[in-house]
Amino acid sequence: MEPVNLKRLAQELKLSVATVSRALNNSSSTSPATKARVVAMASKLKYEPNPHASSLRRHTSKTIGVILPEVANPFFSLVVNGIEEVARDQNYHVLLYLTHDNYEREVAITRLLVGGRIDGVLMSVASASQDFTHLDLLRERNIPTVFFDRVYDGLHTAQVTTDNCDSSYAATGHLIDNGCRTIAHLAVSNSLYIGRARTRGYAAALHDNRIPFDDELVRYAQPSQRQDVAMIQGLLQRRPDIDGIFASVESLAMSSYEACQNLGLSIVTAIKIIAFSNLEIATFLSPPLTTITNQRTLWAKPPPGYCLTQSWKTRRFQPATAWN
Amino acid sequence: MEPVNLKRLAQELKLSVATVSRALNNSSSTSPATKARVVAMASKLKYEPNPHASSLRRHTSKTIGVILPEVANPFFSLVVNGIEEVARDQNYHVLLYLTHDNYEREVAITRLLVGGRIDGVLMSVASASQDFTHLDLLRERNIPTVFFDRVYDGLHTAQVTTDNCDSSYAATGHLIDNGCRTIAHLAVSNSLYIGRARTRGYAAALHDNRIPFDDELVRYAQPSQRQDVAMIQGLLQRRPDIDGIFASVESLAMSSYEACQNLGLSIVTAIKIIAFSNLEIATFLSPPLTTITNQRTLWAKPPPGYCLTQSWKTRRFQPATAWN
Repeated sequence: MEPVNLKRLAQELKLSVATVSRALNNSSSTSPATKARVVAMASKLKYEPNPHASSLRRHTSKTIGVILPEVANPFFSLVVNGIEEVARDQNYHVLLYLTHDNYEREVAITRLLVGGRIDGVLMSVASASQDFTHLDLLRERNIPTVFFDRVYDGLHTAQVTTDNCDSSYAATGHLIDNGCRTIAHLAVSNSLYIGRARTRGYAAALHDNRIPFDDELVRYAQPSQRQDVAMIQGLLQRRPDIDGIFASVESLAMSSYEACQNLGLSIVTAIKIIAFSNLEIATFLSPPLTTITNQRTLWAKPPPGYCLTQSWKTRRFQPATAWN
Repeated sequence: MEPVNLKRLAQELKLSVATVSRALNNSSSTSPATKARVVAMASKLKYEPNPHASSLRRHTSKTIGVILPEVANPFFSLVVNGIEEVARDQNYHVLLYLTHDNYEREVAITRLLVGGRIDGVLMSVASASQDFTHLDLLRERNIPTVFFDRVYDGLHTAQVTTDNCDSSYAATGHLIDNGCRTIAHLAVSNSLYIGRARTRGYAAALHDNRIPFDDELVRYAQPSQRQDVAMIQGLLQRRPDIDGIFASVESLAMSSYEACQNLGLSIVTAIKIIAFSNLEIATFLSPPLTTITNQRTLWAKPPPGYCLTQSWKTRRFQPATAWN
């Protein structure tokens, strides 16, 4: 079947394309009777305006580009759920791009988006990024951008983030309160603000409890989960005095479970683990995982000129529950 | 800063827009020297062609619409990972739409996509769908469509699915081999092919083991997880003879864990649970969850005229491991 476009509608109605277009745009120069005929035919043939023609004419795409490290992760999949829902309610479309924490991929995606395909960007930066000049392009082209979670603080734009430092301080303090003295910190990245803030909270809690900071105990995420498990196993073997792990992301907690299982170390008895997590099933893990749930966001006002119609819910950080 | 478009490039180069366009399209009517100048300037200014203009001219959008029930689910998030990766490699974009298993939403999304925004659709049908006439629109408009997992078998098009019936037969048999005699089946939908096939496998295993099929033991997913838990609790209270649960999706297995926990029923000792699942952390659950992992896909050839350049990996179904 032929595409149902303005030309086809005009043929069926024996009207000019211009008249059909005016009728659909509710122009005052078209009679109510003609408008009614055009609308009825458009509905009958299930006409949808060509989005590319509308975008060219209006210089908007009604599309938001979402750039994420990954989606197979309970935190980011909940984020995508939320973004898609709000976008749909506002008749916006969501283009999804995954960097898999790869820097080159993030650069290529950012470059791709500045040509007019999207009206704005929601972004969580790849943990492997060390150089952020590719993000300057978003500002140069006046593309409204909101960073969330793994934010880039070098671009003066809206950010949605959590109280990373305070929560990490509380999480580390919770391990110390439960008797841990040699606490490993598994961090996501040291070039990202989120990584530095979480490590800062960890270090501050150690300091306030007179526990010396030990560089060897701070380790970073590897390119794959298998490498994460190997890295954690190596650390636990080198340092059998480790009695607590503060994992700054969920996947590192799961890798810690696997490493402990491989080494025959009992979680809770030998090693206590706490993690940033939105894992709903944390309580069904064996043993249950103590988590810090992202519930509060700190909302930085966008600079003037940025059109953000959506405000963010205030969420709350919950201190982790006790181990059992 | 002004957008970097053909006009801007032409101004910078003191050439006509037509010449710049021809040079970028590598036309033979442009001299190599001019081409080199244009390409250098385009690179310097980080020019990207306007995707809407290209789409209008070429009648393609280089975009795939992905319609899923949800993404906060390990199976679908892995699916999105795979789709995005293949699409990116082929310079395609991915528009993501979530139905949240809502029929009206699925109809609205399908209707929206037929206007030319996408070149093809990858779709897993909402479990609440009873009427599929909205999907006929995809065929009428000649939009290449591939259904996967929750397939719609009424449209003669490519499908990617698993051996639902055989795997369900094996899963139910595994429960019977482990001593279960009163096995509840928690199903996702009875209007979808996937739901009917899984229930068929369950019923066949009961039959071959001379266990009567009991309608009361087959229950369907509710609109929310809280309602799922309540439904399962109610069933377990009404039927204390239930000693096994075959959950046809992961979320129903997790709700079963919660229901058993709420009722103080010991999983494994009192009730054994098996589920279709891609949950990586199933072995860390307490107790570990026995799963059937989607590894094999049955690949139906697309009808002539459909352009599918991507073939699908053959995956294998693994029988569930023993309980421990």
